[in-house]
Amino acid sequence: MLLDLIQQPNDIKKIDPKDYDALAQEIREFLINKISVNGGHLGSNLGAVELTMALHLSLDLPKDKIIWDVGHQSYTHKLLTGRRDGFENLRKFGGMSGFPKRKESECDCFDTGHSSTSVSAGLGLVMAREIKGEDNTVISVIGDGSLTGGMAYEALNNASRLDTNFIIILNDNNMSISENVGGVSKYLNNIRTGENYQNLKDSIYYPLLGKKYGQPIIDFVRKTKNSIKQLVVPGMFFEDMGIKYLGPVDGHDIKGLLTVIKEAKRCETSVLVHVITEKGRGYEPAIRHPARFHGAEPFDIETGLPAKKKEKANYTDVFSTVMFKLGARNEKVVAITAAMPDGTGLKRFHNVYPDRFFDVGIAEQHAVTFAAGLAAGGLIPIVAVYSSFLQRAYDQILHDVCIQNLPVVFAIDRAGLVGADGETHQGIFDLSYLSSIPNMHVMAPKNKWELSDMMKYAVSLGAPIAIRYPRGEAYDGLKENRAPIVMGKSEMIHKGSRVALFAVGSMVKTAVEVSELLAKHDIDATIVNARFVKPIDTDMTEQLAKEHELLVTMEENVASGGFGDKVIDYLCSNEITADILQIAIPDEYVEHGNIDILRHETGIDAESVVSKIFEKLK
Amino acid sequence: MLLDLIQQPNDIKKIDPKDYDALAQEIREFLINKISVNGGHLGSNLGAVELTMALHLSLDLPKDKIIWDVGHQSYTHKLLTGRRDGFENLRKFGGMSGFPKRKESECDCFDTGHSSTSVSAGLGLVMAREIKGEDNTVISVIGDGSLTGGMAYEALNNASRLDTNFIIILNDNNMSISENVGGVSKYLNNIRTGENYQNLKDSIYYPLLGKKYGQPIIDFVRKTKNSIKQLVVPGMFFEDMGIKYLGPVDGHDIKGLLTVIKEAKRCETSVLVHVITEKGRGYEPAIRHPARFHGAEPFDIETGLPAKKKEKANYTDVFSTVMFKLGARNEKVVAITAAMPDGTGLKRFHNVYPDRFFDVGIAEQHAVTFAAGLAAGGLIPIVAVYSSFLQRAYDQILHDVCIQNLPVVFAIDRAGLVGADGETHQGIFDLSYLSSIPNMHVMAPKNKWELSDMMKYAVSLGAPIAIRYPRGEAYDGLKENRAPIVMGKSEMIHKGSRVALFAVGSMVKTAVEVSELLAKHDIDATIVNARFVKPIDTDMTEQLAKEHELLVTMEENVASGGFGDKVIDYLCSNEITADILQIAIPDEYVEHGNIDILRHETGIDAESVVSKIFEKLK
Repeated sequence: MLLDLIQQPNDIKKIDPKDYDALAQEIREFLINKISVNGGHLGSNLGAVELTMALHLSLDLPKDKIIWDVGHQSYTHKLLTGRRDGFENLRKFGGMSGFPKRKESECDCFDTGHSSTSVSAGLGLVMAREIKGEDNTVISVIGDGSLTGGMAYEALNNASRLDTNFIIILNDNNMSISENVGGVSKYLNNIRTGENYQNLKDSIYYPLLGKKYGQPIIDFVRKTKNSIKQLVVPGMFFEDMGIKYLGPVDGHDIKGLLTVIKEAKRCETSVLVHVITEKGRGYEPAIRHPARFHGAEPFDIETGLPAKKKEKANYTDVFSTVMFKLGARNEKVVAITAAMPDGTGLKRFHNVYPDRFFDVGIAEQHAVTFAAGLAAGGLIPIVAVYSSFLQRAYDQILHDVCIQNLPVVFAIDRAGLVGADGETHQGIFDLSYLSSIPNMHVMAPKNKWELSDMMKYAVSLGAPIAIRYPRGEAYDGLKENRAPIVMGKSEMIHKGSRVALFAVGSMVKTAVEVSELLAKHDIDATIVNARFVKPIDTDMTEQLAKEHELLVTMEENVASGGFGDKVIDYLCSNEITADILQIAIPDEYVEHGNIDILRHETGIDAESVVSKIFEKLK
Repeated sequence: MLLDLIQQPNDIKKIDPKDYDALAQEIREFLINKISVNGGHLGSNLGAVELTMALHLSLDLPKDKIIWDVGHQSYTHKLLTGRRDGFENLRKFGGMSGFPKRKESECDCFDTGHSSTSVSAGLGLVMAREIKGEDNTVISVIGDGSLTGGMAYEALNNASRLDTNFIIILNDNNMSISENVGGVSKYLNNIRTGENYQNLKDSIYYPLLGKKYGQPIIDFVRKTKNSIKQLVVPGMFFEDMGIKYLGPVDGHDIKGLLTVIKEAKRCETSVLVHVITEKGRGYEPAIRHPARFHGAEPFDIETGLPAKKKEKANYTDVFSTVMFKLGARNEKVVAITAAMPDGTGLKRFHNVYPDRFFDVGIAEQHAVTFAAGLAAGGLIPIVAVYSSFLQRAYDQILHDVCIQNLPVVFAIDRAGLVGADGETHQGIFDLSYLSSIPNMHVMAPKNKWELSDMMKYAVSLGAPIAIRYPRGEAYDGLKENRAPIVMGKSEMIHKGSRVALFAVGSMVKTAVEVSELLAKHDIDATIVNARFVKPIDTDMTEQLAKEHELLVTMEENVASGGFGDKVIDYLCSNEITADILQIAIPDEYVEHGNIDILRHETGIDAESVVSKIFEKLK
């Protein structure tokens, strides 16, 4: 196998050029095999095989730097830098990450995970090189989807000032996670589909016209329609920003890629190389179902179907259904996603109420302020978003939604530990960053019915509110506990004695497990579903503290600024002494791995909670 | 006076067109007079007089909507909507805000304060109009500086999809707060200075050339240089994004403005009207010193000089000096500002070390990830930024700096209450949003010497660290207390008994005042300067709790997630019972007004603290 020749960085240069296509084929088979077993990002990696090979052939790693935007397309890069064995434990706890990690290899020069950071980081590495007088090549690889994120523009705008080399590869697969939206996407598409671009690219430019024709040309060009303008000057959008543009080039033609990268390396400025790739290239199911194979669960290679059949609904499914119902019931309800109509479950709403659905691209900042505008205009916007991505819009929540006390509902999926995607994707900060914002309300449902009830409550509230729920299977226990939702009131699940378990959202299920374990030691624990993290139920807090030996707060969030802090604060400032155990994620980033393992490692699973309780009771 | 005719919205329509210039003149005199007394944003308001008049003449308020980006240029809008009397108490506590406020007038349709939000909000209002089947005009007015903020692009990218009217006025004064940077700025400048644009604008476009000349034109245009391209097709950058472009037009020619707004209202799409204005128009000192008259203190109209001479250095001055020294001492030190070289005090560093200084535009997200890139490249970047603006980069701090544990120093000015700018600008959340981030360190200096010591410490730390300090005069008391800075260690200022004052940064001065007041009641209070908010000094916390009747935590930050929470948490989880009083900003937005008044209103001034202490001691 050709892959056997590749044991460390730069080994690809030993490969005979006539074998490049065969190597690409081997890499694709390797990736499909490994991801079919462990899960992972398939489509983006299959699309970037030749591009990655060409980069490694053109560069000297780790001296030269490649920054992978988002980073989920870096599998071939990992393979070509001696990490083939790592794929056995890809995305598993203690195993190789699915994203670039500085601590994993010196060939990973910058960690990524969220979208649109690569140009900023690359520009930083370029300026560090210049200031230190070093000599290396810096290349940021960014997808067309990531270009919809505002910080990519902030960075391009700054990159235009450079008088030294900085290469930005636009890996354009016209796909990103979902369908791209907006003007830039359309612009790129026009370049991509312009039938004449190949001719244009190959032509030699010469100034045929003298001043005599100046005015007529001016008039002609001003009159032409968009499509023609783009045909005339591909990439002028970038050149207008001051970024030199090369392309478009076929991202699966290694020879062509090597030529253009060589040309790009000669520029004494920022240069954007527009590379057209096909997401899922070489594996039909991935081409046909780009969303499913974006971040794939283990699958059967033959059929492309998931290896494990989903047995229970997850919270995303529940949210999808309740949104459909809310849309029917209230014409003011509108829904917003930042490029995640599938992931957030808004697809159904989109299908049924297309005029009230907005996919804004990977643009969380705009999503939130746009929602604030919709709310100021009298509607009830629901922003469906992953917890870690909403971090991007912290200021917009604080400054545009909450100061004006506008009725925007945040439906926060993937809150808590998310598993295999690791540090960058864990949704473990939202309770903290949301609950310190005035006018904000924060809730978390204990089970699938409560998510539905909370959504209905949120839509009727008339003020900013966030509902956060975890990734994966929705809890379907405690079906009978369905008391109406009342502002700032928790829900008594079971009244016991000695130990009170005061749990938020996903931790209510854990509290039930804890109580079962405690029952074996003859402790009949009280279980309370907090429902509200802001405002907390102060009456219940007081009651639980006074009537129990130990009050245990439980949340799947960092301790600092979370639910437990609020409970302790209340008791302290009201001079109620109580023995309190705060169960929360410690002050550290949490790596990738199976969620159950991560819950144990962070000390929030039932067994850990029970042993901490016994320690306290001693 | 013509202004007397304007008592309520739309009254401007009663003015005879021949008197427009005279009215503009009256407005300018009025604004200069009022701002010279109360302070406020002068330059931007003088630049927007005719534009605002033209908008009010073209629209029907409050049915039609104007969203003012940033909002500091809305004074003429306030004047024309019946708020002339409000200028008596402009920016004073209980008086009229210097920014648009929905609660102030129904002609203010969306609150602003931070940059680059207006297109998102406007798009929300447009879609609300469409969904509700209403009929009104929505106009977002955005400056060229605000265009450097990424969320403006996210919004423009989405605006391009519209098939209904939405007007974006680009109020281009080539100035914003400081000199604009980057490609877009240059692009706009090229349009602005293109000598032929007036001719072009007035010309009638006709398709002179048939297919015969097609290829030569293509070749010609591809060959032309940037400046010529822009001359040929002003606004094509926007048209490439799918936004119709009109302009450029003279922003001080009311007749021209009325014509172009009329044309813009006829578009069935998003349309950007490029208006060229002069910041400070009509007042020479404001034209000559745009930075000083951006947000002006009260000044003498004759000379343009500040009415009050600055007597003491403020923290910005101290920071400026220490940056100059750090730059000399360590070649790895680089400095970054997001369009605030004056405001943050980096101007001197810029002058002395131009190659190590970066003004990235109003682009906090990029600023932080760019800093992370510089740090990954081996440098020590210092990001100098205002507290409330850093909120924009919360995710970048968490995701790009702290996961990788990179040595980026955040020098956070305007932390705590800022006064006259009000809700949107109060820096009262940073201790909370920063200290819940793993790997982050958070400090605050008690006085000017300590800011200097902390900066030196931060640069040597090799990990993410934030130092926050308030607006205004630097405290120059406690000069003798200058023990070396040690990680996680506080500083004992005075050892007393009964009451311990454990204070953060600006509140150390308050603690001294409190101790003086307590001394009159024969209480010799202990004073400790916390220095670190993360990690807190746990030994000192324990000692203070055990040796005093009452432990008072003091911080100029919201309570939730702040310093007091951490102290209480530590004591609680270590089962140390203590009587604690947490002094912090309550869970509410704080309006504009004199800082001393605001400190009293929020209960963090010495008198309030003392009375709370006595309440507790009772």
